[in-house]
Amino acid sequence: MSGQGPGWVTIVGIGPGNDALVTPEVTSAIEDATDIVGYIPYVERIAARDGLTLHPSDNRVEIDRSRHALEMAAAGKRVVVVSSGDPGVFAMAAAVLEAVEHGDTAWRDLDIRVLPGITAMLAASAACGAPLGHDFCAINLSDNMKPWALIEKRLRLAAEADFAMAFYNPRSKSRPEGFAKALKALQEACGDDRPMIFARNVSRPDQTIKIVPLTKVTEEMADMRTVVLLGSSQTRIIERDGAPLVYTPRSVAG
Amino acid sequence: MSGQGPGWVTIVGIGPGNDALVTPEVTSAIEDATDIVGYIPYVERIAARDGLTLHPSDNRVEIDRSRHALEMAAAGKRVVVVSSGDPGVFAMAAAVLEAVEHGDTAWRDLDIRVLPGITAMLAASAACGAPLGHDFCAINLSDNMKPWALIEKRLRLAAEADFAMAFYNPRSKSRPEGFAKALKALQEACGDDRPMIFARNVSRPDQTIKIVPLTKVTEEMADMRTVVLLGSSQTRIIERDGAPLVYTPRSVAG
Repeated sequence: MSGQGPGWVTIVGIGPGNDALVTPEVTSAIEDATDIVGYIPYVERIAARDGLTLHPSDNRVEIDRSRHALEMAAAGKRVVVVSSGDPGVFAMAAAVLEAVEHGDTAWRDLDIRVLPGITAMLAASAACGAPLGHDFCAINLSDNMKPWALIEKRLRLAAEADFAMAFYNPRSKSRPEGFAKALKALQEACGDDRPMIFARNVSRPDQTIKIVPLTKVTEEMADMRTVVLLGSSQTRIIERDGAPLVYTPRSVAG
Repeated sequence: MSGQGPGWVTIVGIGPGNDALVTPEVTSAIEDATDIVGYIPYVERIAARDGLTLHPSDNRVEIDRSRHALEMAAAGKRVVVVSSGDPGVFAMAAAVLEAVEHGDTAWRDLDIRVLPGITAMLAASAACGAPLGHDFCAINLSDNMKPWALIEKRLRLAAEADFAMAFYNPRSKSRPEGFAKALKALQEACGDDRPMIFARNVSRPDQTIKIVPLTKVTEEMADMRTVVLLGSSQTRIIERDGAPLVYTPRSVAG
């Protein structure tokens, strides 16, 4: 079937790991595809079948991967680009659109869609209660693509705004010192012991959730498989026999 | 079957309207429930069946509704609390946990779970590209439960941090002036013509997406069925024959 009929590119979110978090809309797009493009571990989640070609690629080649998807769609293929979580949150949707803006002008006329998914911070929030239940922000802690000074500025302003916060890509082997610097900035700016939550392998069978007072956090608690949440000054912990529940109340007193 | 075996409360997100955005995990919880609790239009989305009791309730009774759900679970019922979007984003998860914290201490021992869903801002972002593709924040513009001064402070700090932004509950009949005040603060703080996006009835058949330069926005563009997004200073618009694509690049120059 590939090459017949109009091609398209659909960028989908396959959630943080558990297939029960993949929306029917995304499942349907994958069933209609002739080609699947994405980072190796995400493409591995797609079942092989006749008529479907899998194109796994390595990390940090997002623009090459995007161009490849657009080229195939221009040639009539029905291409699904798979992202972990939600494709619009630190994932492939922005990369594909960057490739469109700076690439072949004919790509603008392609049928390009983005289908949302369950992003890691919301799966992590659900796993421990509702720590993002009031105003919050999401910050990518990797300084691969932005200056560290901007990250630190955002951390300090987010603390001043008293947002709850979610941190993606908190720490990697190539950036071992970044999370320690972020922690120091947050401990200074927050000045209290609000809970920080480390959700590792969220939604997977080996999921772990750690809730740690901000002053007791150490940098090795995070790695690239962890999404980190931080409460606001208002966040509450409900202690009980089982795992505690963490939530940020809906209201703030006047 | 109700009343037999241990009861539980599961707070689920049924997404912004399209049933193809409901995760299989949530569908499964609804199938296992004896009782469904929630705001009238959300409960209306649940199919009736033998053994399932629907308990629709009006808006602004979130704590009463939460207590009712917890009481039924304590009596052995399997209760699903339905929220629009994601239950942890300006929705029922924080309300149920507030009821747990301040209610009967026996409620702490109940099996309480939160299952994530597709929140309106991510469906809206996907519908026009990836405007939340870099660091962003989510702010509830209703001042029913927090002072207006805090909202305005957060808007100004979010602009200074150069976050993309998502606004929930931008405007209602009971708060006709709030969105105009928010707009004025944003226009002053941003000082440019970045795109504001009005996603009304997102994911539904009557979805509309309007992309408007910030200085051209007028307050009546938003209502309670609209989620509003605002780009950062870096957000790009890709013009083409069809609807434009909006995205915020993944990188910021040093």
